[in-house]
Amino acid sequence: MDPLDLLVIGAGPGGYVAAIRAAQLGLKVAVVEKEAALGGTCLRVGCIPSKALLESSEKFAEAKHALAAHGVKVAGVELDLAAMLARKDSVVKGLTSGIDALLKKGKIARHHGTGRFVAAGQEGVRVAVTDAAGATTERLAKRVLIATGSKVAKIPGLEVDGERVVTSTEALSFSSVPKRLIVIGAGAIGLEMGSVWARLGSQVTVLELMERILPGMDGEIAADAKKILERQGLAFRLGVKVKRAARDPQNGAEAIVELAGTDGAAGEVLRAERVLVAIGRAPCTDGLGLEGVGVKLDPRGRVLIDDRFATNVAGIFAIGDVVRGPMLAHKAEEEGVACAEFLAGGHGHVDYDTIPAVVYTNPEVAGVGKTEEELTAAKVPFKKGVFQFRGNGRARAANTIEGRVKVLAHAESDRLLGVHIFGPHASELIAEAAVAINFHASAEDLARCCHAHPTLSEAIKEAAMAVDRRAIHA
Amino acid sequence: MDPLDLLVIGAGPGGYVAAIRAAQLGLKVAVVEKEAALGGTCLRVGCIPSKALLESSEKFAEAKHALAAHGVKVAGVELDLAAMLARKDSVVKGLTSGIDALLKKGKIARHHGTGRFVAAGQEGVRVAVTDAAGATTERLAKRVLIATGSKVAKIPGLEVDGERVVTSTEALSFSSVPKRLIVIGAGAIGLEMGSVWARLGSQVTVLELMERILPGMDGEIAADAKKILERQGLAFRLGVKVKRAARDPQNGAEAIVELAGTDGAAGEVLRAERVLVAIGRAPCTDGLGLEGVGVKLDPRGRVLIDDRFATNVAGIFAIGDVVRGPMLAHKAEEEGVACAEFLAGGHGHVDYDTIPAVVYTNPEVAGVGKTEEELTAAKVPFKKGVFQFRGNGRARAANTIEGRVKVLAHAESDRLLGVHIFGPHASELIAEAAVAINFHASAEDLARCCHAHPTLSEAIKEAAMAVDRRAIHA
Repeated sequence: MDPLDLLVIGAGPGGYVAAIRAAQLGLKVAVVEKEAALGGTCLRVGCIPSKALLESSEKFAEAKHALAAHGVKVAGVELDLAAMLARKDSVVKGLTSGIDALLKKGKIARHHGTGRFVAAGQEGVRVAVTDAAGATTERLAKRVLIATGSKVAKIPGLEVDGERVVTSTEALSFSSVPKRLIVIGAGAIGLEMGSVWARLGSQVTVLELMERILPGMDGEIAADAKKILERQGLAFRLGVKVKRAARDPQNGAEAIVELAGTDGAAGEVLRAERVLVAIGRAPCTDGLGLEGVGVKLDPRGRVLIDDRFATNVAGIFAIGDVVRGPMLAHKAEEEGVACAEFLAGGHGHVDYDTIPAVVYTNPEVAGVGKTEEELTAAKVPFKKGVFQFRGNGRARAANTIEGRVKVLAHAESDRLLGVHIFGPHASELIAEAAVAINFHASAEDLARCCHAHPTLSEAIKEAAMAVDRRAIHA
Repeated sequence: MDPLDLLVIGAGPGGYVAAIRAAQLGLKVAVVEKEAALGGTCLRVGCIPSKALLESSEKFAEAKHALAAHGVKVAGVELDLAAMLARKDSVVKGLTSGIDALLKKGKIARHHGTGRFVAAGQEGVRVAVTDAAGATTERLAKRVLIATGSKVAKIPGLEVDGERVVTSTEALSFSSVPKRLIVIGAGAIGLEMGSVWARLGSQVTVLELMERILPGMDGEIAADAKKILERQGLAFRLGVKVKRAARDPQNGAEAIVELAGTDGAAGEVLRAERVLVAIGRAPCTDGLGLEGVGVKLDPRGRVLIDDRFATNVAGIFAIGDVVRGPMLAHKAEEEGVACAEFLAGGHGHVDYDTIPAVVYTNPEVAGVGKTEEELTAAKVPFKKGVFQFRGNGRARAANTIEGRVKVLAHAESDRLLGVHIFGPHASELIAEAAVAINFHASAEDLARCCHAHPTLSEAIKEAAMAVDRRAIHA
């Protein structure tokens, strides 16, 4: 059998996108994926199912609380959780089977199983592929791409049992609405899943080690988001350290969360029907046999790569959550495309300064470029323009006036350095900011782009104008 | 009294924005507005109230038809039209009084009345301002800006009485849902108001002279929109000429619409409780006394201006719907800012190639740059990339999979020439396309911008990739 041009291990958004682009560029490609469904964490148990539930739970909350203001009277509003979960599952099924079809269209062979490096040498890289039944075959490829992604980080003391103490995977499928839910970690996943269950009726408490929510996002925007999420019923306890979380041995229907005490005193004990551990993710490198072929990891356990996604072993490459950089599906996709282009003899490029980050609360949080904290820490002189959505006509027409846009530009050159949004459809609004930063726009450039009226995007224009104290509607 | 630096006649989005920017730049400014509420057609009886009703009526339609799929069960869904209209009115009130506050903040004097040119000469321009009680005062200004906007076009045979045969103004405030509504004109206003009342229960028929809806928007996108709007219950009769529309003299509760017959035969007669005339708008120049000071109009009755918004009479300028170009609030705003900057001795600029146009149906229609028809007519060689929202993860998660994005780029240079969208939140998605065209981006540039996952904006990226047959998810 001729060697493959490229074997991709892991068919998440990094891996399958790399495979498709490589196939488009004429390479002979196969993928190895251990799960029955393609699409990785993102499609199966991440971005997609969470967005489906966020969407549906928001409709539920809206039906209960927001329709009357619009002149829409509804009698009894009831939750059909089974139907809500079934829709989510069908969205996932539609998309993951869509990836199947895309691979077939690209004539990309698919192995259902795990991949393990056997050897890497002059003739190529040999990978043992073991299927679910334990049968192993070997594939030879000129190049192998590690795109195995990440998994929920394990922390000693947090005893995940998948029922009382769970990860985001289980929190996507609770069979009933927990009366009380404790979320450990106020990052994107914690706030999104916390929002879903709070909307559906849970009393949700979010515990966070830091003194703020959404570490990594702009601080002012995160503070704004916290206020509104609290108004929606989420309770936050910041600056608390969780010592232990486990099913209550006395009462299996509950979990216990023990906070670290101060000065040696015993910590407070909290109880809830369910506890969601959302403290971060770790790269998936187990079982790949990296040591055997000598692939180096960095101190944080991620596969070490150079600017062209090459590991230290010739013929072995890596992208996505398993390497440095933000663990985001779209970052992995960009890397997948760029890596495929390098491998096909062209040139690829990822601009790491223009990768947006989004949190799908309601309103949403989105940012691209540097935060105010990052600029301050790096001593970059900057100007700041802020515009509140309450000054925006479309926001008022839609009764969604919470939040703001913040534009950060260099104090001397006016170059756009960061745009941060807490507000309606922030996930979509951030796109123009990313494009502008990509083009090295100044704040004035963005302010002078015509924006359709009435749209929420006008708030970005106004914030850009506000950088020079020239907002019109403020 | 010292002469004003600038007197603005008309406080719509063109006029009040020009006034505010001029004040920011240090000019002494006053505005004349004949209506009690500021903000012009857009805020009072146009964009804003229609968007408020579109938003609310969509919630009603959603409660009736779309919530069950999300697992949200509602018992009786009832329309409280009075509450819906009251919310719309309060949105308008909030925004128009906001403009009051902005003028005060800018120390811009406000005259409630009409303005009429008295003389224009070396010492400045004299304008007679007549208030509602008929009292007239005169103001002298170094420069006067005509920003009087537009009004509903009158066509012989269409006998608007404000009750049975109405304009968009009355269609924003029907006190009950008409059983049958005939809309004359399948442009933005006709489709938006038709959608509102169809959602609330009217049987709506849209009559259009052309053989297509949304003349001026991209044809493929408009055809896509037509199909979906029909599925929503709007009936279209294209290529029909309306000869007459009037209250039925026999039955005052109805209106009659008589179509032009072919070959001299009598035309078909349609009946409806209400008929909305939405065939276009005409510039407002009546009563300004333009002839007296010699301001020239173009053959279509619009004030003739040069590149700096100057009329043929020194000291008199004009912007917005009363001059050439699309009758859009955001076009008027851009002109207002640019004109104020010219007047303050700086430089202003409006890029007429990057003014987006939006129709707020559901899904929305939005476009920027050239349409396929325009490029074909101008014999510009182009490539086309299309991506369907059904291939987009966010669209599937939200059950909003109808529509497509179309990207048009120059066949040789790949420069972006137009982006056209029919799909969820098209009004917001179009912003990044406008920014990209502003920066003279190529389709590949846009394709290589990182877009957050999962967002609808990824459909734009995919369509841009599809220009070179390299979409990933298609």
